[in-house]
Amino acid sequence: MRIKLINPNTTWSMTEAMTACARQVAAAGTEVTGVSPEMGPASIESHYDEALAVPGLLQEIERGERDGYDAYVIACFGDPGLSAARELAQGPVIGIAEAAMHMASLIAPSFSVVTTLARTSGMAWHLAERYGMQRFCRNVRACEIAVLELEDPASDARARITDECRRALAEDGAEAIVLGCAGMAELCAAIGRDIGAPVIDGVTAAVKLAESLVALGLGTAKRGELARPLPKAYHGLLREFARS
Amino acid sequence: MRIKLINPNTTWSMTEAMTACARQVAAAGTEVTGVSPEMGPASIESHYDEALAVPGLLQEIERGERDGYDAYVIACFGDPGLSAARELAQGPVIGIAEAAMHMASLIAPSFSVVTTLARTSGMAWHLAERYGMQRFCRNVRACEIAVLELEDPASDARARITDECRRALAEDGAEAIVLGCAGMAELCAAIGRDIGAPVIDGVTAAVKLAESLVALGLGTAKRGELARPLPKAYHGLLREFARS
Amino acid sequence: MRIKLINPNTTWSMTEAMTACARQVAAAGTEVTGVSPEMGPASIESHYDEALAVPGLLQEIERGERDGYDAYVIACFGDPGLSAARELAQGPVIGIAEAAMHMASLIAPSFSVVTTLARTSGMAWHLAERYGMQRFCRNVRACEIAVLELEDPASDARARITDECRRALAEDGAEAIVLGCAGMAELCAAIGRDIGAPVIDGVTAAVKLAESLVALGLGTAKRGELARPLPKAYHGLLREFARS
Amino acid sequence: MRIKLINPNTTWSMTEAMTACARQVAAAGTEVTGVSPEMGPASIESHYDEALAVPGLLQEIERGERDGYDAYVIACFGDPGLSAARELAQGPVIGIAEAAMHMASLIAPSFSVVTTLARTSGMAWHLAERYGMQRFCRNVRACEIAVLELEDPASDARARITDECRRALAEDGAEAIVLGCAGMAELCAAIGRDIGAPVIDGVTAAVKLAESLVALGLGTAKRGELARPLPKAYHGLLREFARS
Amino acid sequence: MRIKLINPNTTWSMTEAMTACARQVAAAGTEVTGVSPEMGPASIESHYDEALAVPGLLQEIERGERDGYDAYVIACFGDPGLSAARELAQGPVIGIAEAAMHMASLIAPSFSVVTTLARTSGMAWHLAERYGMQRFCRNVRACEIAVLELEDPASDARARITDECRRALAEDGAEAIVLGCAGMAELCAAIGRDIGAPVIDGVTAAVKLAESLVALGLGTAKRGELARPLPKAYHGLLREFARS
Amino acid sequence: MRIKLINPNTTWSMTEAMTACARQVAAAGTEVTGVSPEMGPASIESHYDEALAVPGLLQEIERGERDGYDAYVIACFGDPGLSAARELAQGPVIGIAEAAMHMASLIAPSFSVVTTLARTSGMAWHLAERYGMQRFCRNVRACEIAVLELEDPASDARARITDECRRALAEDGAEAIVLGCAGMAELCAAIGRDIGAPVIDGVTAAVKLAESLVALGLGTAKRGELARPLPKAYHGLLREFARS
Repeated sequence: MRIKLINPNTTWSMTEAMTACARQVAAAGTEVTGVSPEMGPASIESHYDEALAVPGLLQEIERGERDGYDAYVIACFGDPGLSAARELAQGPVIGIAEAAMHMASLIAPSFSVVTTLARTSGMAWHLAERYGMQRFCRNVRACEIAVLELEDPASDARARITDECRRALAEDGAEAIVLGCAGMAELCAAIGRDIGAPVIDGVTAAVKLAESLVALGLGTAKRGELARPLPKAYHGLLREFARS
Repeated sequence: MRIKLINPNTTWSMTEAMTACARQVAAAGTEVTGVSPEMGPASIESHYDEALAVPGLLQEIERGERDGYDAYVIACFGDPGLSAARELAQGPVIGIAEAAMHMASLIAPSFSVVTTLARTSGMAWHLAERYGMQRFCRNVRACEIAVLELEDPASDARARITDECRRALAEDGAEAIVLGCAGMAELCAAIGRDIGAPVIDGVTAAVKLAESLVALGLGTAKRGELARPLPKAYHGLLREFARS
Repeated sequence: MRIKLINPNTTWSMTEAMTACARQVAAAGTEVTGVSPEMGPASIESHYDEALAVPGLLQEIERGERDGYDAYVIACFGDPGLSAARELAQGPVIGIAEAAMHMASLIAPSFSVVTTLARTSGMAWHLAERYGMQRFCRNVRACEIAVLELEDPASDARARITDECRRALAEDGAEAIVLGCAGMAELCAAIGRDIGAPVIDGVTAAVKLAESLVALGLGTAKRGELARPLPKAYHGLLREFARS
Repeated sequence: MRIKLINPNTTWSMTEAMTACARQVAAAGTEVTGVSPEMGPASIESHYDEALAVPGLLQEIERGERDGYDAYVIACFGDPGLSAARELAQGPVIGIAEAAMHMASLIAPSFSVVTTLARTSGMAWHLAERYGMQRFCRNVRACEIAVLELEDPASDARARITDECRRALAEDGAEAIVLGCAGMAELCAAIGRDIGAPVIDGVTAAVKLAESLVALGLGTAKRGELARPLPKAYHGLLREFARS
Repeated sequence: MRIKLINPNTTWSMTEAMTACARQVAAAGTEVTGVSPEMGPASIESHYDEALAVPGLLQEIERGERDGYDAYVIACFGDPGLSAARELAQGPVIGIAEAAMHMASLIAPSFSVVTTLARTSGMAWHLAERYGMQRFCRNVRACEIAVLELEDPASDARARITDECRRALAEDGAEAIVLGCAGMAELCAAIGRDIGAPVIDGVTAAVKLAESLVALGLGTAKRGELARPLPKAYHGLLREFARS
Repeated sequence: MRIKLINPNTTWSMTEAMTACARQVAAAGTEVTGVSPEMGPASIESHYDEALAVPGLLQEIERGERDGYDAYVIACFGDPGLSAARELAQGPVIGIAEAAMHMASLIAPSFSVVTTLARTSGMAWHLAERYGMQRFCRNVRACEIAVLELEDPASDARARITDECRRALAEDGAEAIVLGCAGMAELCAAIGRDIGAPVIDGVTAAVKLAESLVALGLGTAKRGELARPLPKAYHGLLREFARS
């Protein structure tokens, strides 16, 4: 089975780190390929960044279809372009916010999300609603750590995230933690040990869900909303996105 | 007051038609400029099209800010890129689905949406939920008319849409109709007369809401989620979208 | 265009003040007439007051219909008698809570209401739900200022309201403020400047929405729930309310 | 124990009929007094009628307090003036829609409401939401029988209502029926026998709930929203409603 | 009328205490029989305890049917086995959480639940949702008193519960209190007097609701979900539960 | 990895069939053990059956803990005893309704459930709500096939279920199907081929989710609601269920 993991930002070092995490949980026989789009923002911290990450992401999905991938993971906690990607793909496409929230709801009656910047909290709540996970989500907490700061070994990111996780348990009454950024994947196990409660990272969760769906013979529903986009003209810089 | 009306698809004839509709309702002293993006799809009928309409749309918003526009209307019923556009703009940005649904809820206890292709119904429901308008929305009905077909004088689009509106009143118990495509703006008044119930077109509704907010001295909230995007590097085809 | 602004309480000085606010935002060509009912409470601070403000309000709507008004604004934050008024009117009828909440949702992902007495908070929440605006409403905060106290120049109403608005931004994470009383209309612009965030007053918002709907040729839906009331006998003190 | 049953319309023959029903279910030791207000509409079939039924109703509550009643029933399915009445009363005040819906939810996983005119269906849905009973309510069905027609022995009201109840069981999958008008109280038992499913009438249900709350020593919560209205001036025709 | 009150735990002293409370509010002519199951846990403080209390409870319902009881009360705040019990019974079956929440919603716009152990809070919220009472429920507060501790005269249970009730009024803005354990029934009146707000105990509330439904001639709906269970084989320890 | 699959009914032939299905999708290295409880109903078709299946199920979970199983699947579409089982288990416990609904929501914007008897539809809706999956669930459709009939090779179960699935696609607009009984697991692939849309069986879905969680190092959250039950006395037939 071949899974294509797409980090929608263009920071390749993050892509490598999260691909390594993905491979650690993948089953024997699952090959995970990690990529970044050729175009778009270095990190995703606003609706603007998110919107502009999508064209490059869709290009990677379309290439993936030509290359025969079985499933895709979109590895940014805003799950950018998820529905559009599903229109292109025959197999499953899983977002990491979606994956983490669903998995959390299977092992705990409640969770809090611990994320990077407060300005993205609204997006996390919006996704929770869209996936039906709002009823499990006690809070979305921001550490006010920029996404690329997570990569800086000199930063105290791990300590600050761990502290916020502890506050989520104590103040929100959350029974599990969802990490709100693909860049936190590497920290997941250590934080879980430190706080003594389940901590769910979306990258690894999404890989397992994608694997599971493929094993079950299930792909994206192709009647109705997620059918292949209709062919039509595209203009200007994006003319190559036309589909026939 | 200067309002920039952005038709997010690249079919300029539609832009002209909807701009004419917009000008008919604009107040004396309101100048409406209608544009299409330089890049993107000829029509928007899928999540894929919608995602790829957004970069060109955001470019027009950013230009509009440099040109000192007071407000913006996004004239596609999927309200593509609305939150991202709001991050860029100081003044109000109004989507036409948003405008039509809000206006309908002010004059009727219920409405049905009559739109183009069934595959976009899910998007309309999603927007209704996001805007809090789901409780007023009885149904989303598709005529299975492609967007560009609306422009064809030889088509029977008006008759088919009118029939669907009548069914919405009779079968859904809807008390008003929301037209689910900017390309239907020209038909609004005639259909309203034919069916004897309020018919709301989002293009004109959005122009009046944008005007109203400007007259009230209200712009987009710039603290929190809709603050200006942070500066960062952008790569590849989209590198010009980097903000500093 | 002629809009009738009805202050449902019988304190004429408040009516004059809010009519002046309304006229400041009205378009050239819009004539705003402000009235108070001939009967009812001097201020509305309970369900009881609200219920007893409605007969006088409906009398003003019925007179307005005879006088050919194009639209109505009900200028009390409980939006008393809104559905009944809509049954009587051909044109739009807009409540100020409704107007302020809808407008706030167009420019901010969240708002808090700052109102007079805590005992009216439940009504504000109830309206937010009814209009679909609950999802945007972070909190309803009371200053414990009586309605008529707002008119007393010696009171510190403006300072107390401004403080409560600041707390709403800081503690609720609200991104905009909705003022919860028609008597606060005059303070709107000044508070907005002081707190540096959008502050929405329902009186002016409702005038612009009423104007907009009239400009769009839209009136109240007259099939179904909001059809004219059926003729029937009325008895006692209210016998003059019989309709034929 | 003394319960005051207030029929908010001014059709005394209906008041007598429903008072008789109420007395049939009242416990030994419960005295039920049935009244109609001195002012207001002969029947309630619109928001307008409902609003104008409230002053007379509140007058009866206030008199009831002076006369020492233990509890009140508001016997119109729109539950007009319920919150205002609760502000005035020390003891419980129960609306018949409220009573019927709550009781239905205790014996069946779902119910449909069968009511008079379709134009009142929106009100029934609104009440279902307000009481938390929307999740049990499958449908609101109208027989298009005017309220006063229910009293006409020559009408075929019973047959038409029974038919509609049968359709509710078959088409909605409802497991119980809530009768949507106080004027249907007399028919309740017979329809229940005819259709072989529980049929709940609000008048009798409300009497039992009022009795129960009094027996439990429970009255209306007097802190917060339902505290006694503040004293203030009232003007014009309604000046007698001023409270001190 | 004969009501069977089933305390689903096997601590007979609690059964006696709550039966005494029930009898104090029962109408003349109502006979209340209090029982504990022959099998199951001494107290119910987890999903596990709750699940294992149900077989003994159902045995008592089945016996009750043979003995001709008119109605049943399930006297544990988790309302264990409620739907299963309703399948067995012809008459009404009322849970005490259900009863208390419904009754609270009739006299107050909001309530908080004050219960025993925090680990049961999720169950209380789940029930509030299921009954439609979530919108009235401000908070579920735990005193961290074990169920059997409530019986210990040397404990300070009453003081601790009263303190928590006062905090609910002050911090949650609750206007009434629902006691979250059948073992608190005896304390209800005293706490109500102490805090000056309505305090609702589910045991007594349920008795009155059961009485009311029987007086109205209403039993459990026997078509659809709550029809008698189908006959089938049962094995092992529970083989006696087979129904024919 | 060792997963214990518990069929909560006592029909061993069904257990064998579903265990075979489970093993077909299990990863290399996953050992699936299928069991039926020693006590309880031969099939589960009512709340009564479901309640009485739980003690035997919990006994199997407790034995599983002693035997060191990594995860559990509860293989009945009512997900009986799920929360109680989670209190006992360290590892994940997955219900098949839960698994199927979550998986369906990852590949389709909507699904309908096709189940056995109509009387269980309410349970399916209740679970959909509890898991947050109600927003994806278009309908719950019953074939009126008894559970044990599914095993009868002479029955036309497969044809009837396939027809109902087709109706779900056509009439509900569902884009995927969730099979509403563990006894349908064997039919899943064939029906999917026949109807040309994704068909999700909960047994296999749950096995993959359980496997995934174990691979991620995630178990049930042990603070709060799902902590191990407190030790206490148990009486009568169920005294062996006491925990110390």
